Amino acid sequence: MMLSIVLVGTGNLAENLLRALFKTKQVKLVQLVGRNPSALKKFEHKVPVTSNYSEILDADVYLLAVSDHAIKSVSKSLGEVKGIIAHTSGATSLNAISARKKGVFYPLQTFTKRRILDFQQIPICLEASDDGSYDVLRKLAESISSKVFHVTSEKRKKLHVAAVFANNFSNHLFHISEMICKEEGLSFELLKPLILETVQKLEILTPQEAQTGPARRNDLESIKEHAALLKDEEHLRIYKLLSKAITKLYEEKL
Amino acid sequence: MMLSIVLVGTGNLAENLLRALFKTKQVKLVQLVGRNPSALKKFEHKVPVTSNYSEILDADVYLLAVSDHAIKSVSKSLGEVKGIIAHTSGATSLNAISARKKGVFYPLQTFTKRRILDFQQIPICLEASDDGSYDVLRKLAESISSKVFHVTSEKRKKLHVAAVFANNFSNHLFHISEMICKEEGLSFELLKPLILETVQKLEILTPQEAQTGPARRNDLESIKEHAALLKDEEHLRIYKLLSKAITKLYEEKL
Repeated sequence: MMLSIVLVGTGNLAENLLRALFKTKQVKLVQLVGRNPSALKKFEHKVPVTSNYSEILDADVYLLAVSDHAIKSVSKSLGEVKGIIAHTSGATSLNAISARKKGVFYPLQTFTKRRILDFQQIPICLEASDDGSYDVLRKLAESISSKVFHVTSEKRKKLHVAAVFANNFSNHLFHISEMICKEEGLSFELLKPLILETVQKLEILTPQEAQTGPARRNDLESIKEHAALLKDEEHLRIYKLLSKAITKLYEEKL
Repeated sequence: MMLSIVLVGTGNLAENLLRALFKTKQVKLVQLVGRNPSALKKFEHKVPVTSNYSEILDADVYLLAVSDHAIKSVSKSLGEVKGIIAHTSGATSLNAISARKKGVFYPLQTFTKRRILDFQQIPICLEASDDGSYDVLRKLAESISSKVFHVTSEKRKKLHVAAVFANNFSNHLFHISEMICKEEGLSFELLKPLILETVQKLEILTPQEAQTGPARRNDLESIKEHAALLKDEEHLRIYKLLSKAITKLYEEKL
């Protein structure tokens, strides 16, 4: 039996989900719901759209690709639907949804405007209020991704923190490195092959094995010279804290 | 005229340089020099090797792929050679080499055992004591890389600091994210597509544009919840410092 889906949201994740759902023949996207009529316009030639919660169609799954703080109110607006209501947030509990049949459908990825990713490679973390709902969500997830996992609310929140370190924080370090280049009139392009290799190495090594540099070698002279070059106090604080953390990790191993 | 090269060193960078030099027909690697005879053994069927500084052959360039602290002593051991002596360090001054004709040949990349990278994509930062030496080093660099730049000692040191942020520090954040996963019995594999996309995004966006997450949104509630989940004090300190830095960056933009 083909699953029917109503998708709520028009942001980067919603657009990526919509494109992935169009590609699979195992599910049918029956409606796209959004607050903003102009955001919906972009999709109305592909799928029925509405901004009106009294016009919501019946579906097996209502997938909420909305911001964390909107999950509660959107799930209330949907009212007494027959299908499963599932949110897509890493940081929000299953219980933020008031419906009886509910779930979490969390794609562990960072979504950006105008970037359509291959959903097959995106891990989807699932949770549900009951076995029947779980099976439906799993069928939906497996129709668009080859990486589907059961992850409880508690574990998912920790995973979300890990994702903040892996994505938000590393991205901020890339920002700092770009700023340091700019101060010297150097192009950030110079660092891009290094950044790419930092990540590609992780195919064969753990981050701990892959580490190099002055802090790993406990090369205090280089660390001191670097610190003297950093004019921005915040950059300096981050340099010191991370160098200390790395030095400590490899000292402990001796 | 074909350039002749003597390469000193047997580590990861030396091996990568050796493979790149073998591929080009514009230069000839005439000798590999290393302290450790057993490390040289691996290469002796490909190139003449020696551990003895009295046996060093004549060459246009002596390329030192040795650790930073060994540059001074190795360049002294080479004595009065006719060619240019160049080191490959990001953090070391040109003047660490005592020879008259000297240079810096710094490939901005992280090199790992058993990983042979495509040198064409690796930026090489050059500096030399005189124009003639610079031209020779540029010819050498351009024979193996399409990305050759003139970078002074001062700028190169700043670039090296930027590289520490971009590579060593981001890698340590990946390590922390792996540790957080492990605490929950979750596989680090779950985060790899996210980490890869973090970097791939930078093809079209600056890190500042690419940023997402609670700190960028100044979502204090999520930040507080995350902080409560972090049991390791050092992880917590890093979480707080980087969240603050990100929040500040986007506040400033308002």
